[in-house]
This record gives sequence, C-alpha cells and structure tokens, in this order.
Amino acid sequence: MKLIDGKAVAAEIKKEIAEEVSQIIASGGKRPHLAAVLVGHDGGSETYVANKVRSCEEVGFQSTLIRYEEDVTEAELLACVNRLNDDPDIDGFIVQLPLPQHISEEKITEAIDYRKDVDGFHPVNVGRMSLGMPCFLSATPAGIVELFKRYKIETKGRHCVVLGRSNIVGKPVSVLMMQKGNPGDCTVTVCHSRTKNISEICLQADIIIAALGVPGFLKGDMVKEGAVVIDVGTTRLPSDKTKSGFRLAGDVLFDEVAPKCAWITPVPGGVGPMTIVSLLKNTLLAGKKEIYSQ
Amino acid sequence: MKLIDGKAVAAEIKKEIAEEVSQIIASGGKRPHLAAVLVGHDGGSETYVANKVRSCEEVGFQSTLIRYEEDVTEAELLACVNRLNDDPDIDGFIVQLPLPQHISEEKITEAIDYRKDVDGFHPVNVGRMSLGMPCFLSATPAGIVELFKRYKIETKGRHCVVLGRSNIVGKPVSVLMMQKGNPGDCTVTVCHSRTKNISEICLQADIIIAALGVPGFLKGDMVKEGAVVIDVGTTRLPSDKTKSGFRLAGDVLFDEVAPKCAWITPVPGGVGPMTIVSLLKNTLLAGKKEIYSQ
Repeated sequence: MKLIDGKAVAAEIKKEIAEEVSQIIASGGKRPHLAAVLVGHDGGSETYVANKVRSCEEVGFQSTLIRYEEDVTEAELLACVNRLNDDPDIDGFIVQLPLPQHISEEKITEAIDYRKDVDGFHPVNVGRMSLGMPCFLSATPAGIVELFKRYKIETKGRHCVVLGRSNIVGKPVSVLMMQKGNPGDCTVTVCHSRTKNISEICLQADIIIAALGVPGFLKGDMVKEGAVVIDVGTTRLPSDKTKSGFRLAGDVLFDEVAPKCAWITPVPGGVGPMTIVSLLKNTLLAGKKEIYSQ
Repeated sequence: MKLIDGKAVAAEIKKEIAEEVSQIIASGGKRPHLAAVLVGHDGGSETYVANKVRSCEEVGFQSTLIRYEEDVTEAELLACVNRLNDDPDIDGFIVQLPLPQHISEEKITEAIDYRKDVDGFHPVNVGRMSLGMPCFLSATPAGIVELFKRYKIETKGRHCVVLGRSNIVGKPVSVLMMQKGNPGDCTVTVCHSRTKNISEICLQADIIIAALGVPGFLKGDMVKEGAVVIDVGTTRLPSDKTKSGFRLAGDVLFDEVAPKCAWITPVPGGVGPMTIVSLLKNTLLAGKKEIYSQ
C-alpha cells in the first residue's frame, strides 16, 4: 500500500504557482486577485475560507475576504456578486457554500460571471466541462484528477466506481474520469443511495472515488486487492482529542481498506489540500485570461 | 418480450402538442416558430431536417428552413445564427450537425442564444441539465427518458449500462438516468471504446442504452434475461431492398437480443421518432417562455 500524499502534491503545485506569479509580477503583469464571500459563522466554512485566503497569500495572490452576517438578504448578496462581476481588479471570486436557507444558492451561483467563477459551479463551466471544452473545472474533481496525473496512476480502461452523485463531486468527477485522455478513459459506474448491490459493484472496481459524506462507509470487504481508493469524505465529527473539538472523518474505513490498496488517500491530507490548489490554479488562469479572453 | 413503440408514443405526444398549440392560438397566443439551418446536402441530414420540418407542420408550429451550400463560410453561418438570435418571431432554432470541416461546430453551438437552443447542445443547457435545473434537454436523451415514463418502466435502483460517451447521447443520458426522480435513480455505468470487459458489464445490466454507432454491436450473449434494451444506433447502411438505397442499422442485434428482453426498442421506430418529438417539446416550451422567461 502506498499513500497518496495530497498535502505534499499541493505544496509542490503551490510552489509552481508562486513561481509563475513571481514571473508575472517581474514582467510587469497584474497580481491575480481572488475574492471570497463568507456568510455567517459556520465552523466548517470559516475554516475553509481561512485556508483559501492563507493559500492565496502563500502563492502571492492578492485576496479579499468579504463577510456578511447570517441575516444578509438575497438582494444584498446579489448586489455584492454584481459588484465583484464588474470590478476589473477582481480576477475570480467564490461565494462559500452552504448559504442560509433564505438565500437561493442556485440564484447566487448563476449570478456570478462565469468568467470569474473559479469554483467552476456556474452552468456554463459545468456544461463546458461535460463537453470537454476549456473551462474552470470544479475544484474537488480537478484536484482528484491531478493526483492521478502527478502519481502517474494508470486510468485508461480501468473500472472507476464513484460513490455519490452530488453536483460538486460525484457527477463532475465521473465525467472527468470517462473523458478521452489521460487521466480519463475509465469505464465509470456511479453509485448512490438508491444503488442496491453497492458492495458487489465496489468489489469490481480498479478505482473507487468515495464521495457520499458517510463516515467509514467503505469497508475492507468491499474493496478488491490492488485497488486505488480516493476518499473525498470530510465529515466533521466531535472529538475530545483535538484542539478544535472535532476531527475530519473520511468515507473510507482506512485501517481496513488501506492494506488491500495499491494506492489510497488519507483524510485529512488527501483530497482536501488538492481542492484548494485547484481553486488557486483556476484563479491563476483567470488572472492570465487563459480560459476566457475577456 | 414487449416492443417499445417509439413511433406510437411519438404520435401520441404530437397529438398532445397539437392540442396545446390549438389552445394557444384560440386564446390569441403566438404560434411557436422553429427555424432549422441546413448546410450542404448530406443524405442523413437532409432526411432528418425534412422530418423535423414536417413534424412542425403536423403539430401546428410555424417552421422556416434556411439552406446554405457546403462552401458557406463560418462568418456567414455565424451571421445567420445572430440574425435568428435577434429575430423575436423565432422561438427556437437548430443548426443541423455535422457541419463541413472548415466550420467549428463548437463555435456555432456556442453562438446560439441558449434561450433558443432547442437542441439542448449549448453549454448553458448541458450544464443546467447536469445540475438538475430547468433547461432545454438534449433531444435524444430526453426522448429515451420519455419512453421509460410513458411505458411506466421502473428505473429506481436498477443498473443502467450506457454504451458510448458522446456529448449528444452517452454522457447526457447517463446523467438523466442517475438523477434523483422517476425516471432516474439508476446506478449507471458508462462503457466505451476503452472498456475492457464490456460483455461482463452488459450482463449485469437491468437496462442497456446502446449508443455506440456500431451496427449489431450488442449480441444475445451480452444481455441477461429480462433486461430492457434501448437502441440508439442509426447507422445508414447501403441496401438494395429499399427505395432510398439504404437502411438504418441499430447497435443491437435485434433477432438475438429481443427474445431475452422484457422490453426493447426497434430500429427504426424506437428512439428516432422520440428525438424529433423532444425537439418539438423544447420548441413549445421556448414559445411559451417556460424555461427562460425572456
């Protein structure tokens, strides 16, 4: 069993991005600028956004954090989105999800100019990804694919089983894994809460991408010898062993599954750091106007 | 074995659409208007477009056929698209694919106003479909789903194997079959040219949607008893038995596969007629401004 060290790969890519930013600045270019909008004080969201802002600083981006209280109206948030859309200094921005119940995530996501949608959640980017066109790739799926690439793990013709059909992981990663190319060219099966024989299907998998958000779902007897297992789960469970009072739990029962695997990602330190790096890559592309020329 | 009679279902839906158009006209509304753009004289395209125009007339739509010779420039075609985008009388339009080599299909498709994109090929509609938002559904996948609905064939929790990963059938139909809802909620496997054990996977399928474009690909020994088989193949093969000089060949070796099936679509008369009906449904929705309000 070999560990896929997402943290190390992320650090490597951050260094590459930082070098490119230095070159851009040295040649008189504009420093990429990411804005993050955070509504309320959800613990998970606070952590994610803080990590994103810190990562921006690490690679030399400019970053702006815009905070709203839980009771911000949808109209106020839409006005903020429009200001960011129109601000020529902002290359890309994100609105951290989830949003409070009284605000439509769909409406906010659609209001974001797709040319600044560095989360890759806007229908234009989702559609272009599905069609294999240049776009801002959704961050977590792109991070997973990057791990296959960096570790040179063969995907062509292999059977990839995706657990979960969410808009931000399951569906997009299934498309990326089946697309022509490398990584890609997998036979892909998508399982979810309605799947009947999930163990039987997992046992056929050369690659399993677990993104159900159910801690410890994938057990040892569901995985064949030599499989590659990517754990996307990041459920926050209470813990008295950590300073923060919680720990991150993956979808994979690591101790049982790991011994059978050729490759496996840990939680934390696997997919998580790669997600942030994907966001940085998209922001760099946005700054360079590489996907959309204007 | 029971036959899924796409021709009969299509006729039924056309009648429903025609009634709705009558009501719209009776209450002083505008007659839905579809334009079709045809470049060159490819036999298949000629037939498809002629069928679409005739179907429009059958349901009471207004239709306009715009023809260009094979040597039309990309700029001329783009100008045509822009005129149709701006013409308030045109509710929806299609540019029949394939286009000649010197014209970028991607560029033309993206130039179409997504609010008039009744083929459902524009990234906005592809993305919204993937996200489960209201949109113009791609015609063939929507037609397939409609067959499951009309015949009340259970899909929930069943294993659907899709053969082919094209942008216009394989990928979108896999998304529709896995989405929450009915039809939907399938475990979905997408196979393609790189899949190694395609027979083994097909043998597990409760539902097979064959969209490879390889005549007779799916044989009797690849299908389990009681499966539902949807044949999307429409390869034109030369024939001396037909007036036109060709016959349509499906991806399924019908004589071998049909006896094992619970349900199967024939070629022709299965998915084909449903595709045109999906286009009509999209045009009706466009005319009523039901998906996009302006």
